[in-house]
Amino acid sequence: MLSRNELKRVHSLQLKKYREIHNQFLAEGTKLVLEILDSGFSISGIYATTGWIRETSLPPASASIPVTEISESEMARITALSSPGPVLAVVNIPAPSPFPVNTGDDLMLALDDIHDPGNLGTIIRIADWFGIHHIICSEYTVELYNPKVIQSTMGYFVRVNLHYTNLPGFFSSLDPSVRIFGTFVEGKPVYSAALSPAGIIVIGGESSGISAETASFVTDKISIPSYPVNRGRKDRAESLNASVATAIVCSEFRRRSV
Amino acid sequence: MLSRNELKRVHSLQLKKYREIHNQFLAEGTKLVLEILDSGFSISGIYATTGWIRETSLPPASASIPVTEISESEMARITALSSPGPVLAVVNIPAPSPFPVNTGDDLMLALDDIHDPGNLGTIIRIADWFGIHHIICSEYTVELYNPKVIQSTMGYFVRVNLHYTNLPGFFSSLDPSVRIFGTFVEGKPVYSAALSPAGIIVIGGESSGISAETASFVTDKISIPSYPVNRGRKDRAESLNASVATAIVCSEFRRRSV
Repeated sequence: MLSRNELKRVHSLQLKKYREIHNQFLAEGTKLVLEILDSGFSISGIYATTGWIRETSLPPASASIPVTEISESEMARITALSSPGPVLAVVNIPAPSPFPVNTGDDLMLALDDIHDPGNLGTIIRIADWFGIHHIICSEYTVELYNPKVIQSTMGYFVRVNLHYTNLPGFFSSLDPSVRIFGTFVEGKPVYSAALSPAGIIVIGGESSGISAETASFVTDKISIPSYPVNRGRKDRAESLNASVATAIVCSEFRRRSV
Repeated sequence: MLSRNELKRVHSLQLKKYREIHNQFLAEGTKLVLEILDSGFSISGIYATTGWIRETSLPPASASIPVTEISESEMARITALSSPGPVLAVVNIPAPSPFPVNTGDDLMLALDDIHDPGNLGTIIRIADWFGIHHIICSEYTVELYNPKVIQSTMGYFVRVNLHYTNLPGFFSSLDPSVRIFGTFVEGKPVYSAALSPAGIIVIGGESSGISAETASFVTDKISIPSYPVNRGRKDRAESLNASVATAIVCSEFRRRSV
């Protein structure tokens, strides 16, 4: 049973303003909540239906987390989802990980205004799969703790660090030896371009791609060839979705490294 | 100005039942509508705001299509989108393209119960990019003409043919020389597996992957290696999103062909 105040407070975390005030965010669904319980994140409270509580064995380390049994109609009033699941967790936002990070010996992503929450979530999941630990996000990239982002990561954000900063400022602070890759129509085909095991891959935003200012820092312009390569622009898709492009480029970098 | 009946009829196309009765579907937004106008699809009517009609020059071939000027509040009553655009088209569903298709000399996709409209739309866009003209969909794969699918294709469905059928039945009708690829945890890394310029790539559904029955037809089990390759399952994402896996596998097939 939820008090009126508690209901209001949990529900408020759907909005960025209240996530900032309370320094907390929402995570919903069994898979996501268990992934977070299993991580280093601290959960301030779990709200779940009777059935979920009966059927789910929580890890011993979570014994101190308050679990509130709520009805489906209460869940419907706090959820950020159109089809709510049986469990919702209120998670404490951790302190940001140290930044700037060491850019010399690792592959990283830089996101130049990714606005779509589903794209950011998918990119985080791709980063986790390919062992990329740091994502540098432009200031206008959608917030990690947006419920739609958290849901679409499937919980895999727990091992990936996001840093929000001014991208040109970040790039100008780097050692000039750091290679910065970006996809451009006129870039070298990624399949044959000279890649490196370390460096930064810039992903352009959904609407306008890589901004001119960011582009000026790119040292290696690459492209994803469509097939067959001689098709005209009218005869194929003009571009790939941002998360799809991320997947293909990361896969090619890692293919070269194994 | 929309009559009450017309409003009701257009709005009804959000539902599969009425798309089947009227043999029509909805497409919204400038990019999508222009892409369809430019294709072989037949449009039965365009509904647009005054501003859009004034600013948009339609191709000469579309002179016979009735354009109805409507207000933003009328648009809000027929749209399938949460943020409606300035234009909506009612498009006639074309006759299905011939099936079965020649499977001997082309790369195709087979989707084993893709339920998420966004995933199907993204997969169609990937297919178009990589010159894949036929997608064989299991009977439980989400319908192409679902508005969410159409919107997420960004219009690129016009060059890709979808065929809905019973997948095991389709596979058993094939010449035994046709290679059928599918991703499995225990498959050979796609980067080093023996691929072929023709064949069928099976993509498993979001929840349960490739079904056991479909798996029995797969001739070549492949996998997408995570990085670094020796990480345990607990230390990385368990799987990639279905459309992301499609992108990586298609990219690798086409990389070998160029």
